[in-house]
Amino acid sequence: MDYHLRARPSASASELYADFKAVRGVTTALATDLTDADATVQSMEDASPAKWHLAHTTWFFETFLLARHAPDYAPFDARYAFLFNSYYEGAGERHARPKRGLITRPGLDEVFDYRAHVDRAMESLLEEDRGADVRDLVVLGLHHEQQHQELMLTDLLHLFAQNPLRPAFKSPAPLAVTDTSELPKGWTAFPGGVLPVGHLGDEFCFDNETPAHDALIRDFRLANRAVTNGEWSAFIADGGYETPSLWLSDGIAAVREQGWTAPLYWEQRDGTWWSMTLRGFQPLDLRAPVCHVSYFEAEAFARWAGKRLPTEAEWEIAARDAGPAAGNDLASGRLRPAPQAGSEAAMAGLFGDVWEWTASAYLPYPGYAPLPGTVGEYNGKFMSGQMVLRGGSCVTPAGHVRASYRNFFQPDKRWQFSGVRLAEDA
Amino acid sequence: MDYHLRARPSASASELYADFKAVRGVTTALATDLTDADATVQSMEDASPAKWHLAHTTWFFETFLLARHAPDYAPFDARYAFLFNSYYEGAGERHARPKRGLITRPGLDEVFDYRAHVDRAMESLLEEDRGADVRDLVVLGLHHEQQHQELMLTDLLHLFAQNPLRPAFKSPAPLAVTDTSELPKGWTAFPGGVLPVGHLGDEFCFDNETPAHDALIRDFRLANRAVTNGEWSAFIADGGYETPSLWLSDGIAAVREQGWTAPLYWEQRDGTWWSMTLRGFQPLDLRAPVCHVSYFEAEAFARWAGKRLPTEAEWEIAARDAGPAAGNDLASGRLRPAPQAGSEAAMAGLFGDVWEWTASAYLPYPGYAPLPGTVGEYNGKFMSGQMVLRGGSCVTPAGHVRASYRNFFQPDKRWQFSGVRLAEDA
Amino acid sequence: MDYHLRARPSASASELYADFKAVRGVTTALATDLTDADATVQSMEDASPAKWHLAHTTWFFETFLLARHAPDYAPFDARYAFLFNSYYEGAGERHARPKRGLITRPGLDEVFDYRAHVDRAMESLLEEDRGADVRDLVVLGLHHEQQHQELMLTDLLHLFAQNPLRPAFKSPAPLAVTDTSELPKGWTAFPGGVLPVGHLGDEFCFDNETPAHDALIRDFRLANRAVTNGEWSAFIADGGYETPSLWLSDGIAAVREQGWTAPLYWEQRDGTWWSMTLRGFQPLDLRAPVCHVSYFEAEAFARWAGKRLPTEAEWEIAARDAGPAAGNDLASGRLRPAPQAGSEAAMAGLFGDVWEWTASAYLPYPGYAPLPGTVGEYNGKFMSGQMVLRGGSCVTPAGHVRASYRNFFQPDKRWQFSGVRLAEDA
Amino acid sequence: MDYHLRARPSASASELYADFKAVRGVTTALATDLTDADATVQSMEDASPAKWHLAHTTWFFETFLLARHAPDYAPFDARYAFLFNSYYEGAGERHARPKRGLITRPGLDEVFDYRAHVDRAMESLLEEDRGADVRDLVVLGLHHEQQHQELMLTDLLHLFAQNPLRPAFKSPAPLAVTDTSELPKGWTAFPGGVLPVGHLGDEFCFDNETPAHDALIRDFRLANRAVTNGEWSAFIADGGYETPSLWLSDGIAAVREQGWTAPLYWEQRDGTWWSMTLRGFQPLDLRAPVCHVSYFEAEAFARWAGKRLPTEAEWEIAARDAGPAAGNDLASGRLRPAPQAGSEAAMAGLFGDVWEWTASAYLPYPGYAPLPGTVGEYNGKFMSGQMVLRGGSCVTPAGHVRASYRNFFQPDKRWQFSGVRLAEDA
Repeated sequence: MDYHLRARPSASASELYADFKAVRGVTTALATDLTDADATVQSMEDASPAKWHLAHTTWFFETFLLARHAPDYAPFDARYAFLFNSYYEGAGERHARPKRGLITRPGLDEVFDYRAHVDRAMESLLEEDRGADVRDLVVLGLHHEQQHQELMLTDLLHLFAQNPLRPAFKSPAPLAVTDTSELPKGWTAFPGGVLPVGHLGDEFCFDNETPAHDALIRDFRLANRAVTNGEWSAFIADGGYETPSLWLSDGIAAVREQGWTAPLYWEQRDGTWWSMTLRGFQPLDLRAPVCHVSYFEAEAFARWAGKRLPTEAEWEIAARDAGPAAGNDLASGRLRPAPQAGSEAAMAGLFGDVWEWTASAYLPYPGYAPLPGTVGEYNGKFMSGQMVLRGGSCVTPAGHVRASYRNFFQPDKRWQFSGVRLAEDA
Repeated sequence: MDYHLRARPSASASELYADFKAVRGVTTALATDLTDADATVQSMEDASPAKWHLAHTTWFFETFLLARHAPDYAPFDARYAFLFNSYYEGAGERHARPKRGLITRPGLDEVFDYRAHVDRAMESLLEEDRGADVRDLVVLGLHHEQQHQELMLTDLLHLFAQNPLRPAFKSPAPLAVTDTSELPKGWTAFPGGVLPVGHLGDEFCFDNETPAHDALIRDFRLANRAVTNGEWSAFIADGGYETPSLWLSDGIAAVREQGWTAPLYWEQRDGTWWSMTLRGFQPLDLRAPVCHVSYFEAEAFARWAGKRLPTEAEWEIAARDAGPAAGNDLASGRLRPAPQAGSEAAMAGLFGDVWEWTASAYLPYPGYAPLPGTVGEYNGKFMSGQMVLRGGSCVTPAGHVRASYRNFFQPDKRWQFSGVRLAEDA
Repeated sequence: MDYHLRARPSASASELYADFKAVRGVTTALATDLTDADATVQSMEDASPAKWHLAHTTWFFETFLLARHAPDYAPFDARYAFLFNSYYEGAGERHARPKRGLITRPGLDEVFDYRAHVDRAMESLLEEDRGADVRDLVVLGLHHEQQHQELMLTDLLHLFAQNPLRPAFKSPAPLAVTDTSELPKGWTAFPGGVLPVGHLGDEFCFDNETPAHDALIRDFRLANRAVTNGEWSAFIADGGYETPSLWLSDGIAAVREQGWTAPLYWEQRDGTWWSMTLRGFQPLDLRAPVCHVSYFEAEAFARWAGKRLPTEAEWEIAARDAGPAAGNDLASGRLRPAPQAGSEAAMAGLFGDVWEWTASAYLPYPGYAPLPGTVGEYNGKFMSGQMVLRGGSCVTPAGHVRASYRNFFQPDKRWQFSGVRLAEDA
Repeated sequence: MDYHLRARPSASASELYADFKAVRGVTTALATDLTDADATVQSMEDASPAKWHLAHTTWFFETFLLARHAPDYAPFDARYAFLFNSYYEGAGERHARPKRGLITRPGLDEVFDYRAHVDRAMESLLEEDRGADVRDLVVLGLHHEQQHQELMLTDLLHLFAQNPLRPAFKSPAPLAVTDTSELPKGWTAFPGGVLPVGHLGDEFCFDNETPAHDALIRDFRLANRAVTNGEWSAFIADGGYETPSLWLSDGIAAVREQGWTAPLYWEQRDGTWWSMTLRGFQPLDLRAPVCHVSYFEAEAFARWAGKRLPTEAEWEIAARDAGPAAGNDLASGRLRPAPQAGSEAAMAGLFGDVWEWTASAYLPYPGYAPLPGTVGEYNGKFMSGQMVLRGGSCVTPAGHVRASYRNFFQPDKRWQFSGVRLAEDA
């Protein structure tokens, strides 16, 4: 199943339903190997149980599509509206986020039933074209679901990492990210100017990528590849985590309060670095891109390296022509095959290896307006205290990202598949 | 299965194994209707997952019996020694208590396999008499397991009460506690003197019930029955929770910080009190003994009523002749049948309805010495900051309690099946 | 000024006023060398600013005496009723305890004016005998003030200890506690029996010392002197703070959370122990009684030494005949002179060196009833979660303690002048 | 004393010393009416004691000037280097920020002596020209001191506001901010383009204002005046604080957690708004600019008003020609006189009324490099998690601000004199 979301304003009813069925199927497939307990526990407040992801994405279609556009729809369980609303104030009261992991009933099977119930109702709804509003909401719901596919994997890794037995989500095949070990380390120069950024064209995008607008960009250079685990080991060995002058004030405070001495999930055994992964506890591949670092760490590393992080506009300019890579097949547990050494373009791994922290705060673009109604809470209300990441990671669904895509997290978060690409002034 | 633990120093090998099999069977039976998720989640730091109770009680036999007395024993999984140690410093490092709910693997089935593995090894060990040390440890392990049977139910109620769907552990039959509604409210007088307290006789007891010793007791009267939900409603209606002069200073602080306005699990709907129970959300039976109150609430209620709580010595003197009631069959989910009205002795419900808070701090008896070795950590190290409760509750296993039994919890805890019986000076 | 409080029910008006003037004078004298800032800052929530102690003791007389018995009394500032109430719910709303240190105005001088204003009004009130109720309240107020004299010194030491400059409250003369270095280490045996404890006679006492009642006491032995700094050093050197088996569970948790490795205020410099004192930073006198240890530490030390702490009844029986020592002159900064070596009785330092932790929880005596009215909040509502200390310390005012006096603090508190005397079964 | 800092790279030795003397004199004058206690207490972790401000600004000259450039300088007290370092990791260990208020010694008088000691040494140092490095550090130290003059007033207001007696720092004259009540509400349009922002010219500026660089700005309009208390009252009356859709997600969380219902220091009495000010508790002037609001509140207000906050570049473009107002004389307690109604330019109150929150996160300008050495910690390491404010407030020293000046605080902070000016797209 090498799925690529095609839905767009002009999609036919049957195309739209095909998209719907495909995306929903991936989510369900991802949960196949989970136990009821795996799917129920919440490992920290930032994370959500897999069961919750499965149900919440379903709630989205029930609340924004079926309840409004399917007059005969009977809810699977009226109480789920409370249980599985995430943060939409406009959609009523909701279960407290830190208590998502206390809901042992409904069990995983019942949540699958809930998904099937909503899928059937959606099939009926999408039998004919319901107009642009419905189409747009369905497409939004599918992209929403793809985001939760990624979060589900991210949160499961965090959960399994809390278990001293170190269980694996998948069998221990090597992590298939771009192999850049044969790629000569280098920099690609980009000329500045007043250049358009933000989403161009008529494919789907989130509201936070709009409006497209001009940005003033100075000449810059971007590293050909992401920082590797090997390079990060050198940063550690050089005392990076103990040198306050390399860090932002909030950064060194986080280092001290949270006791950081390496990226999240790293552990030293007999002088060798290991790391917890979705495939269990594995020796660290020094050639792979560093992952699970915070913005604070990325920023400090850049200072140590005598470089800086790119702005999100720079990243977007550089990435626009590269285009997303072939993509991951999350449902089969197969990730994107590593490219042949030397076969890559000069700029390797921009998409689908690790999310790349940028130097840009997550703020509205000039002239930004959120979507009308309750779905307007999707992105806009989080534009405070977060930094932008670009590019997508190895757990991002195939075809979900694009050059203009803006991901965002607080600067101390590390459980996402987040890494670093360096930049410098030209 | 109306089991009554018979094990004693003089038990034969076959009697001991029969006891072992019976108690272990009850624990497993209690978990029959649980889902993997139900058994995994930890609803608060004070509580533990059912799966943990199932495994920890098994770890007890593995650690203190098999590892020491069964030379050929091969552990089921060597890593469980870390995972399922509770608080025994002498038994090595252990998994942090607040993180017990993050262990989704092993799943419930695997924990049942662990139980079976240890049960088989114990069967071999107990085929012949291994001497008094082994016998004593087995009996201790069985009482330990009975304590965890009760805690498992207590913790499950707390877990289910966090779920807005209010699931039931058992089908909604009425809660079978002593019906004292026909019993004339009254007081029984007991003469004081220098009287023996603590465990007498040669049946099993915990070390904290020893040594038996003389206590100076003044003449006192004890209420014939526990305070009821109806009486507690009157306390609430009279502003009991808003009247600081009724409370200890720490008590009113707890009321304010934790927002107490009624016992735990009480909820008012349309002017009527309901309560979350193991049988789901139920209308409150005003004739039943009040349950899930803290020591602070019990103490304030007594002041409001112009009475006081009994000391643990008073309670023990009063209860010694009454003897435990017929007992609950936890494995079948059937609790002790309510006695016929009028058929009870003057002193009703001392055993097996609700744990009764006493006015006594949990401290060592004169001359107390903990058991030697690591099992000495069982009771003694908790003799600080807790109050004694007596009598056992409707979720205490049949025959597990006795007049000298000392239960103990911090004065602000409410998730136990804890209630109140009043006393006064004679 | 070697003051000894004489007030009693039968005191004449002039005797009572003499007592009033003397006690009030000591408090003021204690604050003489303080700066406005010293008197204002609150170093932690447990402690109060000296200015607050000066004002609160004055508020006590204003609220319970002048407002009720002096019809023409005009308050110094009506808003002080809110500012300087400590915890009396019956006396209305009050300023939050953790914010006592934010009150920079009124300044220290204005608080002295407040004291003078109330003293003048009290002088008028006490010109003639107002009857037993007034007399009792005045005497209570004086004992209350003496307690705050001690707390003021205790809290000032804590404040100064937070200052890296280590200021001294008084010039660095040696701490004048009982010198027991020449005293042969030994034990005094006391026969048990049913013996009266609690306050006997008609001198003043607090309500928590009543009613006198019989207690059943077993034969016991009490150490001739308190544990010394030298003995405590041996406990530290033997790994006492790193050996969980020596500690209560809550105790070792406190050790780990708060990082205890020695008594409060101890600090090692170049291999030698120093300690912060009211006379500044001083080398530790190994012969002096250990001070500033918690109940948890005292209890662990006793276990390490193979002994136990005495119960409060045992302590009282042993101390009843010894009688308080000559006493400290807090106002002049002169503490009780050290007795000549060898001149002491067999039982040295029971009074006035360090408060001695007992094994008894602070609970009401059988038949205890608090004082009627708002002053009933004085003691009774704190009877939860605290342990009893006996004997008084070097900062306790002369003649303030007696054999039946019950002091009480939570088991993890260390900023009081608290030490240890060991006991054992006979 | 209507002081305006003139120091610049080309200042002569005598001009520089005149500047030094003037700025230092203002600081001392500001503290004249403070008691020792006022100057010592720390009201919250964000604030510092006045005494600390007085000493820390002095430490700056001692550490960065005298210790390095005055070979014969003897420190006033060598321990002050530890006590009064703020956050300079490069200048060694320092006293913990939350404990600044526990330092009752040295007292205020001794801190004045410390100031005088350093002033004398600085006078010697500045007798002749020491070169550009020294000049630059002195000028930096003076601007640093001016920042602390403002913080001292800000922190004192917070301290006095915690006191139920509501003391005044100055006599209760009306707050002299720009009176815009006669000014017709309106908007000034500014044409966009690629325009230079950042510091231009050779006057002093902080490193965070550099390098000057081009910014792409779109046509915009800026409100003629700041939002007033009257307008804010309408926002409150319209349920602004209870309407989640008006707020950022972190914003409404702050409202709920901190219980915000109005700007900091506002209090309703008998239906009228009052506010705590440096002149004590005062009825709210509805015509004055709203003050003590957080970024979250400013941002929500703008959404409620159908407008937005200006970016910092927009603000700078608009303000560049306006120039700072006549300025406040902090030393005499006299603030800038209110301009005659109608006499103001179209754009009123850009400087010196309230700090105006912008929509811009505090991030480095393109090409930014901090100062070399330890003073490089001055600004750069705080470029995370904060929002930019512009313009200066009524407690900002005369002539301290300029169009390019960047102030910055976390978005939930309210104790600064921070307000709002609205913007909109043209």
